[in-house]
Amino acid sequence: MKSKPRFFVAALCAVVLSSARARGQSDPLPSWNDGAAKKAIVEFVQTTTTQGSPKFVPPEERVATFDQDGTLWVEHPVYSQLVYCFDRVPALVKAKPELANVEPFKTVMSGGHEAIARLTMPDLEKIAVATLTGMSVEQFKADVSKWTAAARDPRWKRPYTELTYQPMQEVMKYLRANGYKTYIVTGGGQDFVRTYAEQVYGVPPEQVVGTAGATKYGYDKSGKPFLTKVAKMVLNDNGPGKAEGIYLMIGRRPHAAFGNTAGDQQMLEYTGAGDGARLMMLVLHDDAKREYAYGPAAGLPDTKVGTFSQALYDEAKKKGWTVISMKDDWNQIFAFEK
Amino acid sequence: MKSKPRFFVAALCAVVLSSARARGQSDPLPSWNDGAAKKAIVEFVQTTTTQGSPKFVPPEERVATFDQDGTLWVEHPVYSQLVYCFDRVPALVKAKPELANVEPFKTVMSGGHEAIARLTMPDLEKIAVATLTGMSVEQFKADVSKWTAAARDPRWKRPYTELTYQPMQEVMKYLRANGYKTYIVTGGGQDFVRTYAEQVYGVPPEQVVGTAGATKYGYDKSGKPFLTKVAKMVLNDNGPGKAEGIYLMIGRRPHAAFGNTAGDQQMLEYTGAGDGARLMMLVLHDDAKREYAYGPAAGLPDTKVGTFSQALYDEAKKKGWTVISMKDDWNQIFAFEK
Repeated sequence: MKSKPRFFVAALCAVVLSSARARGQSDPLPSWNDGAAKKAIVEFVQTTTTQGSPKFVPPEERVATFDQDGTLWVEHPVYSQLVYCFDRVPALVKAKPELANVEPFKTVMSGGHEAIARLTMPDLEKIAVATLTGMSVEQFKADVSKWTAAARDPRWKRPYTELTYQPMQEVMKYLRANGYKTYIVTGGGQDFVRTYAEQVYGVPPEQVVGTAGATKYGYDKSGKPFLTKVAKMVLNDNGPGKAEGIYLMIGRRPHAAFGNTAGDQQMLEYTGAGDGARLMMLVLHDDAKREYAYGPAAGLPDTKVGTFSQALYDEAKKKGWTVISMKDDWNQIFAFEK
Repeated sequence: MKSKPRFFVAALCAVVLSSARARGQSDPLPSWNDGAAKKAIVEFVQTTTTQGSPKFVPPEERVATFDQDGTLWVEHPVYSQLVYCFDRVPALVKAKPELANVEPFKTVMSGGHEAIARLTMPDLEKIAVATLTGMSVEQFKADVSKWTAAARDPRWKRPYTELTYQPMQEVMKYLRANGYKTYIVTGGGQDFVRTYAEQVYGVPPEQVVGTAGATKYGYDKSGKPFLTKVAKMVLNDNGPGKAEGIYLMIGRRPHAAFGNTAGDQQMLEYTGAGDGARLMMLVLHDDAKREYAYGPAAGLPDTKVGTFSQALYDEAKKKGWTVISMKDDWNQIFAFEK
């Protein structure tokens, strides 16, 4: 027994010291350059989590929401979920050969890039309905997981799941380390993103809010119940739908929200309309070399995806939202760069 | 420094001992009589949370879902949310005097019990739409909170929120103490239940799944955004809708589910269709003296609410679900009884 007290004191000292180191000395955001954006994040976390601070936020109310496409990972030149839908078409046509001569499936099967680029929104909706509904939720999850493991982004030749922004991963971890629940609030498919969000972002399925279709309860031949994905929209989680989706799925107003396009505007407005400390941030894609530059705020013509319009930029400035410049604020974009 | 090591050892011993006492000696379910139901709960918790157990469930997958009305609190003779809707009618008619001569509001305002009892389902729907939609979500929350504080159950002369079942509160606490996330999955209004669930059950708003209407994003005169409750159903969280709602809002299959009527059947089936240890339980209202007795399984005619049908009872027996007898399994019903 004699040596044990000494051991406990030593262990306790080690714990205290390492915790002090973690708090005071290590940088929770090493991929961020010093500047207004990094400062805004650190100050928000410190003022909302320091007991006695006038802007202290109780742990249960610490909610931070993140758009995914263009905010947490690459969305350019096309959303990866849309790539998934296109990649599913051959299997779909194999299962239903009659579709081979029906548009828009015929065009997709032709492989002609120009014709595919001309597909209209109703065409894309038909493809989405055909590839995202009609199967059991388990089958869907298995299909997505298989695709996620095999698919490669054409520019970086890596799985899409490696194209997440290291600085945003650090923000999520930093917030979680300070008692914040991090949610993904995406215009993408809720159950699509749920298949990989825990592994890729450390965000469990119940903290992924996204565009969601209905399911239908039924039984297989053995009497075992299962859910089938059906073509009926439950939540269009984009624009105003993001604020509505947050109310529906979380029931609390976020204290911090991160986006990058007009589809995130209402989420940031809704977050900012609450009392006390609130953090609203927009990722500006202005780094053509390391990632992409698009949107008028980057001095470039607007594109279909990532519509960071001049109007949104002006609203950000007017409301005091912080714009994150990929070029200036991030010293590293992807984890694989080091 | 000399006396400190001794102090730490003593403190450590105290912690170890009190934790052993908590584990081994105190009963986490004191309101439960010994019997099959209590045994099923304790065995489920022990086998799913003991490292190395073949039925061990990883912490992130520990999800338990609870119906509310009739499972966590009294639903007889009428759901409290319906009482809320009726209680709102006078204020509604005051704001819109033209409704005073329009059915079903005229009947409600007459106060005639027999006429009110004859209201049809479409009548009740009109009342629900009129009293649950059209206001901002903040206004709704304020109205419900005010009502919850003031309303009294006519039999016990107590707030409805005191009419929760003490044994079920113990089950929720016991599960949470063992790493389970407890969710309410109710046919009642999601945002109605969210107003009090944290205080009454220790269940935060984001863990309440219920029947949900849409909201609409807009701006007030000063440009501040707000959400208005609108008369459009997003989730009918009853029967098959409970399994669908769990997939939508949680995205994980529960390991334990508790209900009391046919409206919970699919939630229990869906829970039971998963691998490994699963716990499915039904509360049987067979205690006319201390609470109520209803449903054919209690040897009494079926009623509008709490339809614990003979078919459900038979399915429970066939599938090995555990039926909880209020009369035999619970030595205490309400916290205020002691």
